[in-house]
Amino acid sequence: MTRAAREAARAGLAGLVITPGPDLVHLTGYQPTAITERLTAMVLPADGAPTLLVPKLERPDAEHAIGAPALQLADWTDGMDPYQVLRPLLDPAGRYGISDSAWAMHLLGLQEALPGGSFSSLTSSLPMLRAVKGEDELERLAAAGAAADATYRAILTVPFAGRRECDIAADLAARLLEFGHSQVDFTVVGSGPNGANPHHEAGDRVIRPGDTVVLDFGGLKDGYGSDTTRTVHVGAEVPDQVREVHEVVRRAQQAAFEAVRPGVACQEIDRVARAVITEAGYGEYFIHRTGHGIGITTHEPPYMIEGEEQPLVPGMCFSIEPGIYLPGRFGVRIEDIVTVTETGGRRFNDTSRELAIVE
Amino acid sequence: MTRAAREAARAGLAGLVITPGPDLVHLTGYQPTAITERLTAMVLPADGAPTLLVPKLERPDAEHAIGAPALQLADWTDGMDPYQVLRPLLDPAGRYGISDSAWAMHLLGLQEALPGGSFSSLTSSLPMLRAVKGEDELERLAAAGAAADATYRAILTVPFAGRRECDIAADLAARLLEFGHSQVDFTVVGSGPNGANPHHEAGDRVIRPGDTVVLDFGGLKDGYGSDTTRTVHVGAEVPDQVREVHEVVRRAQQAAFEAVRPGVACQEIDRVARAVITEAGYGEYFIHRTGHGIGITTHEPPYMIEGEEQPLVPGMCFSIEPGIYLPGRFGVRIEDIVTVTETGGRRFNDTSRELAIVE
Repeated sequence: MTRAAREAARAGLAGLVITPGPDLVHLTGYQPTAITERLTAMVLPADGAPTLLVPKLERPDAEHAIGAPALQLADWTDGMDPYQVLRPLLDPAGRYGISDSAWAMHLLGLQEALPGGSFSSLTSSLPMLRAVKGEDELERLAAAGAAADATYRAILTVPFAGRRECDIAADLAARLLEFGHSQVDFTVVGSGPNGANPHHEAGDRVIRPGDTVVLDFGGLKDGYGSDTTRTVHVGAEVPDQVREVHEVVRRAQQAAFEAVRPGVACQEIDRVARAVITEAGYGEYFIHRTGHGIGITTHEPPYMIEGEEQPLVPGMCFSIEPGIYLPGRFGVRIEDIVTVTETGGRRFNDTSRELAIVE
Repeated sequence: MTRAAREAARAGLAGLVITPGPDLVHLTGYQPTAITERLTAMVLPADGAPTLLVPKLERPDAEHAIGAPALQLADWTDGMDPYQVLRPLLDPAGRYGISDSAWAMHLLGLQEALPGGSFSSLTSSLPMLRAVKGEDELERLAAAGAAADATYRAILTVPFAGRRECDIAADLAARLLEFGHSQVDFTVVGSGPNGANPHHEAGDRVIRPGDTVVLDFGGLKDGYGSDTTRTVHVGAEVPDQVREVHEVVRRAQQAAFEAVRPGVACQEIDRVARAVITEAGYGEYFIHRTGHGIGITTHEPPYMIEGEEQPLVPGMCFSIEPGIYLPGRFGVRIEDIVTVTETGGRRFNDTSRELAIVE
């Protein structure tokens, strides 16, 4: 919390307004049972003590949060205007960073209560607040990655042909839980033409011999995220273009990984991956950024995307996941979670990135 | 969607900006796999055709949404500024209602892209948009209520004494699913002093003979919510004050129910319940509003709260849930879902509201 206040001061902010979600969990350990229309918000001034405002009926829960001893607690009751209750905690002319996922109705309430103040999203004002991980966090991300790797190895042994995508997805989910995940966030199984939809989850399509299948899965283990993608082929007769596209994506992923080192701009990781794919003639089929940060959420800054000039710093963790998507035909994506070390990059996923054959 | 546009026009809005969540599900049936930092937003002009802007990699999913045929689809690609893409769809000087739970980072992006425009939360600008339910919706809410009632009847037969709150919570969850819920949203089991925390969920406390236990549970069945509360006592020897407090809450709940009829202001329902409790000398221990709307979400307008002057309209559905919470001792709450009919109110929960004895 002290570091967050210091970084807010350095960014010229009067402080932070943190609402339920990953920011609040990260700073205080507090997670209301549900995020509702009732305002819960922590004000962390750049130069003062933090106060957590909660609905009175949730105060007992808040008092039991891990971070509660370091907080002033305040409450409001149904029928009061919570923004007026929060107002005295805020500098009337201050600029505040507010949690990205704060509800619009709450931001509008704050803007009305503080007409001389201004707000910017935490991601744009302090994008690196949660980006650099400590040793303990790196260990948990590595453990989540290892569990995802074990899941991938296990899925290579199950039958694919004749089963539906959602059956394989259920297998993936079961394995993630078996290997220690507490929560499954996504299990993409994109077979054949469905693989060309990067965010296809899994449907009723029956997988057939000859299909190329994108497998992208992850969730939370001990509060930290996993997220890995491998592309497999059903049967050993792999069409030339599948082999070629897969090799281009593999080379792009490897080149981007090798470009990781402190001081390199995030966008450079995207450029390196994109250059390999563009040179191979598939640039128009790589339709998303190369990666996203990961920690207590599976998508967070830093983003590996054109325009992101933040330099990489040791302890940052993010995905490298180039892909090629041929509409109506198939897709290929290969993804690892990577952390920045003093000398380069370290992968948290290290199963084979060669095209695997499944049955 | 036509009705939403008409109501927006009537409220003096240039239109609505709808982001993923219940508003978007209600209007289009579209629900992205996950709500992320990537902007998805539908612009519904008060006098024009709706457009849904999605991240390009989610377009295939959006195309398959039930409401897609009635929508223009537009997309944006990683690296573009989605607010600039949305801007031409908006009146630069217009006032827009925006989904309550839209992310603050998106609202800030829109405010920057549209400096001459203004935004208000959908709840404050069009609170009644989803409040009045159609016949089909009423049927689903009634079915969800019946399933919750069956759950309550079943829980009366399980042993309480000697088991933990979380064991009873697990029983409740299992019964809700058994009786057709697809999703369990909350299973409050507040025994003894924990019952005095209205939003206590369920912990490790072992329930003992002589405990008063608040049971508040609900979830979604066929996309519509259930939410009911009954308070039970472990063993037949009920202390006088428990009996008294329970009877006060029962009378408050009944009086508020009898006050339901078209044209009555929402705050009147709260006042009626509160008056009974205050007259009995427990006013300071009724620390929350009397109720909340329910539909495809379990908390939505209209709210039965002082200051809410909206009149009740046939087809509105909401909870009536007064309670008394004696800190350190016990709590009592009784809750039904009620709909407004032409002549009064109709309950969707109708298990006994007398204090039940469990073992």
